[in-house]
Amino acid sequence: MNPCVMKFGGSSVENIEKMQAVAQRILEKKSEGYDITVVVSAMGKTTNQLLELAHQASVNPSKREVDLLISTGEQVSVSLLSMILNEKGHPTVGLTGFQAGIKTSGLHTKNKIEDIDIEKVSRHLREGKIVVVAGFQGLNQDGDITTLGRGGSDTTAVALGAKLNCRVEIYTDVDGIYGIDPRLYPQARKIDVISYEEMKEMAFLGAKVMEPRSIEIGHRFRVEIIVASAHTRTPGTLIKEFDPTMENKSITGLSVSERVILVSINHLPSGPKHTADLFIRLAQNEINIDMISQTHTPDGFVNLAFTASFDDAPLINDVLKQVTDKYEDVIISTDTDIVKISVVGMAMRTQSGVAATLFELFADHDIDYKLITTSEISISYTIDRVLKEKAVHLIALAFHL
Amino acid sequence: MNPCVMKFGGSSVENIEKMQAVAQRILEKKSEGYDITVVVSAMGKTTNQLLELAHQASVNPSKREVDLLISTGEQVSVSLLSMILNEKGHPTVGLTGFQAGIKTSGLHTKNKIEDIDIEKVSRHLREGKIVVVAGFQGLNQDGDITTLGRGGSDTTAVALGAKLNCRVEIYTDVDGIYGIDPRLYPQARKIDVISYEEMKEMAFLGAKVMEPRSIEIGHRFRVEIIVASAHTRTPGTLIKEFDPTMENKSITGLSVSERVILVSINHLPSGPKHTADLFIRLAQNEINIDMISQTHTPDGFVNLAFTASFDDAPLINDVLKQVTDKYEDVIISTDTDIVKISVVGMAMRTQSGVAATLFELFADHDIDYKLITTSEISISYTIDRVLKEKAVHLIALAFHL
Repeated sequence: MNPCVMKFGGSSVENIEKMQAVAQRILEKKSEGYDITVVVSAMGKTTNQLLELAHQASVNPSKREVDLLISTGEQVSVSLLSMILNEKGHPTVGLTGFQAGIKTSGLHTKNKIEDIDIEKVSRHLREGKIVVVAGFQGLNQDGDITTLGRGGSDTTAVALGAKLNCRVEIYTDVDGIYGIDPRLYPQARKIDVISYEEMKEMAFLGAKVMEPRSIEIGHRFRVEIIVASAHTRTPGTLIKEFDPTMENKSITGLSVSERVILVSINHLPSGPKHTADLFIRLAQNEINIDMISQTHTPDGFVNLAFTASFDDAPLINDVLKQVTDKYEDVIISTDTDIVKISVVGMAMRTQSGVAATLFELFADHDIDYKLITTSEISISYTIDRVLKEKAVHLIALAFHL
Repeated sequence: MNPCVMKFGGSSVENIEKMQAVAQRILEKKSEGYDITVVVSAMGKTTNQLLELAHQASVNPSKREVDLLISTGEQVSVSLLSMILNEKGHPTVGLTGFQAGIKTSGLHTKNKIEDIDIEKVSRHLREGKIVVVAGFQGLNQDGDITTLGRGGSDTTAVALGAKLNCRVEIYTDVDGIYGIDPRLYPQARKIDVISYEEMKEMAFLGAKVMEPRSIEIGHRFRVEIIVASAHTRTPGTLIKEFDPTMENKSITGLSVSERVILVSINHLPSGPKHTADLFIRLAQNEINIDMISQTHTPDGFVNLAFTASFDDAPLINDVLKQVTDKYEDVIISTDTDIVKISVVGMAMRTQSGVAATLFELFADHDIDYKLITTSEISISYTIDRVLKEKAVHLIALAFHL
């Protein structure tokens, strides 16, 4: 077997005509001798339309039933794409998540892939079929249909690549990964090769092309991932193991997260049990905290600030309400008029000058920041939204992105 | 447990508003102390819209993928109805066919229920939940999603009733079973109680309220079925075991099948292997033959005529083509400008006058018929379509329907 996984997103399969083009692309790849597993998302805006229906049915629809509902979206595109490929003369088989053996766990609408029983997919591939698998969905231990949350179809594709031990090709509306989003900085350059670490960091930090979870799986199982355009034949970006030839640039990318909420909690009683209580509540609601910063006051209180996705704002406000109910003196404020700017590069591990250059740049141009966080290969700042473009251009110029 | 199965068709759940009314109806029943399993069809015209998409994707879409596609219709209505019931304060669980343990076999798009692993449904009922099950679908031995063909949701409901050993209530747009379709004969009377045999015969013979398959299952497992209006509180028709109190009328009903094709095959070589060959080919294509009539000629040939559903006309023509290819001298003609009129009644078993009355009626009023078939409790005639209304009125008057 010479397996290959190809993944097409919702906009690539939004109607039958576009599916025809996708089918053509798949058959070209097939004619190169690959045994192809295709992963597809729901057609166009289907998932949102189904969610709309759910909210007509119920103010707060049961998440289990939401999964049952929205998982139909991929099932429809799988069956139609399978029919089209079949019509073009190739044996195919369309599989839902559960049929493809995708086992998940976690909270409904935010499940994680636990394992894939690859036997069925492999058998169909051995029989020469093109296997079309529904992205974004699986079955949990209770036999309930689940979905994987944002970027879930990428996760399905990479997990299948891990099990089939092959390369995964993610076809999107962009032709690869850029050091900076070209909409923010038109002179941005496309990256030919990037390491899992850098890509993961960029994804975490807001580059929206791929979700960090899928890159994490790719990294863990050493799955080479290509991100390329569904519409052109331009070579895309290869995401792979870091190797020293990648080390010749100081930073790889800059990403900007727009939908950020900054929460500041002042005058919380000191002591790990109080902060732990807060973060456990946030975690129980599956709210992903991004940046965290904490300081102490001499009179025994803690000032805490964190950022999270703006999408989680309603959930966060619920948790904050619980905090104010519990601690009378606490002062809470939230700010959504900010963006997070992050620079990423493996070189930061070895070149200490990167952070210094950034601090100097911001000081020279009067760009104030509220939170700073660093990882081994990145540094992030929250700045006021109005300063976004100025900061992006300064950094891009300084680091030749 | 005090189980009850309620089934709602596509027009009863065609939008959220109608689903709200259905939910209200379910909760009323629940408040009477029943443990309720609901079976729903796809919303309104969803199945047809999905089939339309399939035909855009492929001239001759793979039936396996058609099943994968159209089964999403019931999954959507199950999840939405479950959300609505849940919103109204009742614990619910929505289940697809495979989740409800419905095991099927046969040709895709025309599967039959083999068995139901009722454990999961029972467990949810014991936990006090309203269980909402997708009608019309199941899973076959290969783990492929299947659908049950026309009337499939009724079949799902009655099969669940058989497993749960309880009454099944079929909610429709009509308020019960009539001796004659009121659209054909406005003075028609609703039947309060009817035996499985009569109902099955009427369904076979064209009364469209229920498919014969579901009544057959009801009969075999002694499931009491009520057919009633989804919109009013009028008592419906109870379908149950025959008992002598039903015997006081000579015929129960008259039904008319509109979509009939009459095939006449003349000059086929005599001998059972030739007719068997024809009927085996028809069966392999899952074409249901209705009336059959055969005569012999002195010179060793057979003249054969049969009727089938007009929907199967393309498949039938394929088979007829094979026959003409094989037997050069055969002469084949088809007629679709006919209807089949049938009268049904348990009384025919004991009252020999029914058939005589009919023949006399037809002779007196010059109504010519091409094929006649009889069963223990019915007699059917094919007549020209133009004579339909005349025949219906004559029979209704003669037998006080």
